[in-house]
Amino acid sequence: MADPYVVGIDLGGSHVNAAVVDVTGNVAGQAESPIDRTRPPRDLLREDVARVVLDAMTVAGVERRAVRGVGMGLPGNIDRRRGVCRFSPNFRWHDVEVARPLEEALDLSVFLLNDVRSHTLGEMQFGAGRGVRSLAMLALGTGIGGGLVVNGRLIEGAHSAGGELGHITVDPLGPRCGCGNRGCVEALASGPAIVRAVAELAEVGGATGILALAGSLEAVTPAHVTQAARDGDVDALSILSEAGRWLGVAIATVLTAIDPERVLIGGGVGQAGELLLVPARREVARRCRMIRASETPIVAAQLGQEAGVLGAAALALESVGLLPGLLDASHTA
Amino acid sequence: MADPYVVGIDLGGSHVNAAVVDVTGNVAGQAESPIDRTRPPRDLLREDVARVVLDAMTVAGVERRAVRGVGMGLPGNIDRRRGVCRFSPNFRWHDVEVARPLEEALDLSVFLLNDVRSHTLGEMQFGAGRGVRSLAMLALGTGIGGGLVVNGRLIEGAHSAGGELGHITVDPLGPRCGCGNRGCVEALASGPAIVRAVAELAEVGGATGILALAGSLEAVTPAHVTQAARDGDVDALSILSEAGRWLGVAIATVLTAIDPERVLIGGGVGQAGELLLVPARREVARRCRMIRASETPIVAAQLGQEAGVLGAAALALESVGLLPGLLDASHTA
Repeated sequence: MADPYVVGIDLGGSHVNAAVVDVTGNVAGQAESPIDRTRPPRDLLREDVARVVLDAMTVAGVERRAVRGVGMGLPGNIDRRRGVCRFSPNFRWHDVEVARPLEEALDLSVFLLNDVRSHTLGEMQFGAGRGVRSLAMLALGTGIGGGLVVNGRLIEGAHSAGGELGHITVDPLGPRCGCGNRGCVEALASGPAIVRAVAELAEVGGATGILALAGSLEAVTPAHVTQAARDGDVDALSILSEAGRWLGVAIATVLTAIDPERVLIGGGVGQAGELLLVPARREVARRCRMIRASETPIVAAQLGQEAGVLGAAALALESVGLLPGLLDASHTA
Repeated sequence: MADPYVVGIDLGGSHVNAAVVDVTGNVAGQAESPIDRTRPPRDLLREDVARVVLDAMTVAGVERRAVRGVGMGLPGNIDRRRGVCRFSPNFRWHDVEVARPLEEALDLSVFLLNDVRSHTLGEMQFGAGRGVRSLAMLALGTGIGGGLVVNGRLIEGAHSAGGELGHITVDPLGPRCGCGNRGCVEALASGPAIVRAVAELAEVGGATGILALAGSLEAVTPAHVTQAARDGDVDALSILSEAGRWLGVAIATVLTAIDPERVLIGGGVGQAGELLLVPARREVARRCRMIRASETPIVAAQLGQEAGVLGAAALALESVGLLPGLLDASHTA
């Protein structure tokens, strides 16, 4: 009998990626396509997403009968049990049925999860979270997503919001966050927050090194800030250091409330690595004194660009019983 | 065969309480004694604590052979698996063996847990947490203790610090907390924080209603502030409202990170009830917008003064298998 496979799908705001993956996390084949996120969700899923899945199976040389199930991570609040996206700011979806149209198109079982929660499962199984029973993950990008595993199980929460670590309040009177709150760590340490810090320095004649690298203020991305900081630019170092300290305030709260064995920092902005992690660790050490949680390793995630598809594959492997339980079994049918 | 019982012990800084409890949470008999917390721990446990346990059994008319085990809650960082108190500021204990001396004196199995984590188990089983699989508890007193249950299991944490919700940072530049951090919710909403707020008003000629009730500034307790607020004293209402709002910032972070089904507020200071809970709920509603966690009930705990012994009894019942698993089974022997 052929080795069993699953397909992991990473549905983002501009692209969809799919990979055919085996139980050890090896990618047998992969496909990708730009998408138009304004298409009606049913068409997007049955046509664009399904086609990329079939392409990935072709590339992998794996037939559908060897595929046991499909996992998909997507941004937003996902009702895993109903296969519904309750709310996704990215896609402007409200209560959209997601699993069923894809199941009909593929004739395979489809399992959904919030993208960063799914990354967290992927890191647990194939990445920087191997060998632990509890883990906090923060993925820094356009927003800050999160995931938490405790007692060997993902925290899903009563409203599928468990693990939304980006919306921890770190500064009660801080800047307005996209969610409506003030001073969420997302409003202080995400990509847009870093770019805004550049703009604030540029207004007073600073950030010249970063602007020179990017060409113009409008073109600045967090990657430019990281590059400038690696070249020793003091403004860039200072911006990343401040973002890292806010990240540290949030991590200190996670360590205090949850006390996981390990904290992983991923996402595109997380590529700044030690430039963010050193100030974050310092802030954690200052704030977590009584409890020994400040000994907890705070390290970079490992799956990088493959986090999306590998996380979704881990979800599928777990859901079809090819991996031991990582989700809360009591809620599954 | 006689009904099975357990003994729940609440070891506090000035008193020890013990109760003989059955599987439904009924107290068959209870005893209490003041203690000298500066006694050598071994003597305190083998003599004072053991005597109160035997007294409770006598009062209950329950013989030792009907007692299946003993649970004890005590303040501090407790290594449940080794039966050791790693650190208790209250008792000034560091790495003190607690379970064994008591087991030797009683010839019964003794199970330990941090006091508020044990309250959380008690509320789950016998109080305001019945019927849910996830729960956050904050106990407001001299400090702010906490406990978290997720996926039906208590979060214990990698360093037994899981659930230390009192040390969530709610104001990064706020007042110094006993733990060494700044702006912990404990530093802004505990009993001492409320009394300090009275002193700050008294310095500028305010808080006269509270001072009149208490007799003097030195005599003020949180209960006086609650009493004055119930009588309509504006200073007292304002102090509790501010404490409640800080509590709300911490709860908003708990809802965001964990998304439990219910939040319970207990402890002596929690007796202020709606005077704290209304402003806390408002703050949560302001801060948790995107996720529907702001619909989560935030309510008073139910066990009141019995929380200590009933929580410890729930721990014992769970540990000897008379209640379904509430602790992480993978770590128990």
